[in-house]
Amino acid sequence: MPDVEQFDVVDLIRLKRDQGELSIREIDWLIDAYTRGYVADEQMSAMAMAIFLNGMSRREIRALTTSMISTGERMDFASLPVPTSDKHSTGGVGDKITLPLAPLVAVFGVAVPQLSGRGLGYTGGTLDKLESIPGWRASLSKDEMLAQLRDVGAVICAAGSGLVPADKKLYALRDATGTVEAIPLIASSIMSKKIAEGTRALVLDVKFGSGAFLKNIDHSRELARTMVELGEGAGVAMSALLTNMDVPLGLTIGNANEVRESVEILAGGGPGDVRELTIALAGEMLALAGKPDLDVAAALDDGRAMDVWKRMIRAQDGDPDAPLPVAQETEVVVAERGGMLVEQWALPFGIAAWRLGAGRARKEDQVQHAAGIDLHIKPGEMVRAGQPLFSLHTEQPERFERAMSALQGAWRIGEPCESIAHDGPLITERIGR
Amino acid sequence: MPDVEQFDVVDLIRLKRDQGELSIREIDWLIDAYTRGYVADEQMSAMAMAIFLNGMSRREIRALTTSMISTGERMDFASLPVPTSDKHSTGGVGDKITLPLAPLVAVFGVAVPQLSGRGLGYTGGTLDKLESIPGWRASLSKDEMLAQLRDVGAVICAAGSGLVPADKKLYALRDATGTVEAIPLIASSIMSKKIAEGTRALVLDVKFGSGAFLKNIDHSRELARTMVELGEGAGVAMSALLTNMDVPLGLTIGNANEVRESVEILAGGGPGDVRELTIALAGEMLALAGKPDLDVAAALDDGRAMDVWKRMIRAQDGDPDAPLPVAQETEVVVAERGGMLVEQWALPFGIAAWRLGAGRARKEDQVQHAAGIDLHIKPGEMVRAGQPLFSLHTEQPERFERAMSALQGAWRIGEPCESIAHDGPLITERIGR
Repeated sequence: MPDVEQFDVVDLIRLKRDQGELSIREIDWLIDAYTRGYVADEQMSAMAMAIFLNGMSRREIRALTTSMISTGERMDFASLPVPTSDKHSTGGVGDKITLPLAPLVAVFGVAVPQLSGRGLGYTGGTLDKLESIPGWRASLSKDEMLAQLRDVGAVICAAGSGLVPADKKLYALRDATGTVEAIPLIASSIMSKKIAEGTRALVLDVKFGSGAFLKNIDHSRELARTMVELGEGAGVAMSALLTNMDVPLGLTIGNANEVRESVEILAGGGPGDVRELTIALAGEMLALAGKPDLDVAAALDDGRAMDVWKRMIRAQDGDPDAPLPVAQETEVVVAERGGMLVEQWALPFGIAAWRLGAGRARKEDQVQHAAGIDLHIKPGEMVRAGQPLFSLHTEQPERFERAMSALQGAWRIGEPCESIAHDGPLITERIGR
Repeated sequence: MPDVEQFDVVDLIRLKRDQGELSIREIDWLIDAYTRGYVADEQMSAMAMAIFLNGMSRREIRALTTSMISTGERMDFASLPVPTSDKHSTGGVGDKITLPLAPLVAVFGVAVPQLSGRGLGYTGGTLDKLESIPGWRASLSKDEMLAQLRDVGAVICAAGSGLVPADKKLYALRDATGTVEAIPLIASSIMSKKIAEGTRALVLDVKFGSGAFLKNIDHSRELARTMVELGEGAGVAMSALLTNMDVPLGLTIGNANEVRESVEILAGGGPGDVRELTIALAGEMLALAGKPDLDVAAALDDGRAMDVWKRMIRAQDGDPDAPLPVAQETEVVVAERGGMLVEQWALPFGIAAWRLGAGRARKEDQVQHAAGIDLHIKPGEMVRAGQPLFSLHTEQPERFERAMSALQGAWRIGEPCESIAHDGPLITERIGR
């Protein structure tokens, strides 16, 4: 246990404030002393702002990640007879990829230990989506988790509270102090959890664009490179895909409706963008686990992935065949004119779904499983005046107005020959060996 | 009372973090909400760090100062038959100028309402120094203060707790979070108190150099200009002197010994630098109060300033003729070789005096009245091997070692013809009309 008086936290804050580089020992001490409450929240938030504005060297980010891991326990899947591979997304609107992806990868004899979180803000949480399946439970003991990985090959469950307690404390502080979007802090937060979780391979889905956490592709690339380097330094096989988040992913934004769309993907159907990204990420996860060049798509089309999905849901007491909840109230928005849909921005649709009840404003809030938005057409498609564009769902009709106000300017119908606002490829870059 | 939910503090932090400018209403809300505890310490410290690194416009600094003043009460000396004039120093080693200055200015029919503080860190506090005079008390009621200004013309006492409560809270936070040395925060802290105190004229002694708060003369000049503008905007007649703080001011650093030296100045003697600065600042204070071109020095030499001093001390129950406390333990440091003293750095001497017990590490600590350092020679003077250079005083001999360790490299004896390390003028610049 380090001596709490070994360093003076004000000296360390001043060092970072004045663009200096913190030593490994200083960072170790800082994270330990903060987790134990010896460094106060107001000192750590000043440090976080200094890091936000002055940055950190790769050496500092590595030390920060290692220090955060050592505040908690580590998991270990070495006892499994198969390799492990995992995926992390920086979060986007309509991003349900984890749901079809985990069973799809497990089809090929690679175990997927997905420790997930609940959503806060306009990007939904994987656990929130799965909890719309009747009976499904997110909390598993370590033994249950290992048994499920052995029997089914895939598990999506809540991270235990013992994993990186420093990150839990620091993330809540950053959220309250305007210091979330700093690359050193994002990278160490994500990678400390993934390394502590014990996966041997990890693919990152780093979003960029107007609906992403980091809007700018250069920042997303820097984040991806930083995380790939951190993982490789810790012995994890790594790669990252940079993917566009200007437009919602798929046709559903919410919880139950995103499960429905995931099941469509697992049945070999579903929207093209969701299928494309699921297959690409599965290919990466399998390649990193030593199984390159497999025909991943076939396992969606022939029902093997669906079999694993059903076993995975049942193992956590869910009924994969039960009807999913449907909202009491629905409002359909129709095209005000005919033409081509040329704009459909992810951020306002994400905020609108959140306001309908699909997400939570505070940690302690409950989400509405059936709330959200179904998109009926995607950019580039033609529409007639009066044709449905999207449907809003909620249990509380008073939420429609605030949702609609978020959607001002969120879509635009243009001329048939007009170019659409965001028609680049979904996957723009791969980072890794 | 502003609405606590009018703004979201995270939005304001992000605005300043991203180099935006806060509006007057936003700053008003922030300071009020922080003072009332609705904005948390960890949010305000993140904001303070963002201000430190991204700065503030003059408009923002003006709004910050005004907002801070409005959190507390204001004093008013309009009922006095004479003008008022005050001085503020940004703090230096051996800076006892307030002691001879206040009675000297009062000699000429200008009242001096000096609300002072206690020291924290290596620069001593005026009240700590005066409390070494047997019987003297720092706390006066407002009526006592007004009566003394009317009868004696000068008062040095503790600021009441009702004056700028926002500053008290914010200063303690800045001290703990490495956000002290930001010009917008320093300027608003000093000027909010001085404007709330109600003086009609104010001279600033802004230090620069290795022993000052701000080392760099350009930063000190910027601070001085900012404060002069803030004061003038609030109707206070203002000027500022930039003065060098590479070398301790005078020959004493401590409490009782600084009172002793102040009395020497009031008797027409004392070290040249202390006398020079006292006379210059008195001239500025009188000129701003409408009394330029007076023979200030004469009042030191003919005993008029000493008379006011004695009356001022007696009015606060002190005995100006009582012997001052003398330390139990003294250690004399002698010249290791003959030559000229070419270096004598203020900062290590300040820290050493602090460690001997002259200052406090924590707010709740007591200072030792007799602790401190007497310098026996100043830079530029010749010394023989074995001749005393300075004496350390404390009540606790175990403090000598830590004091001496602070003094490593604090002085240097060179060749007779060598140039000394800091021989520029004491007063380098005047800022003001």
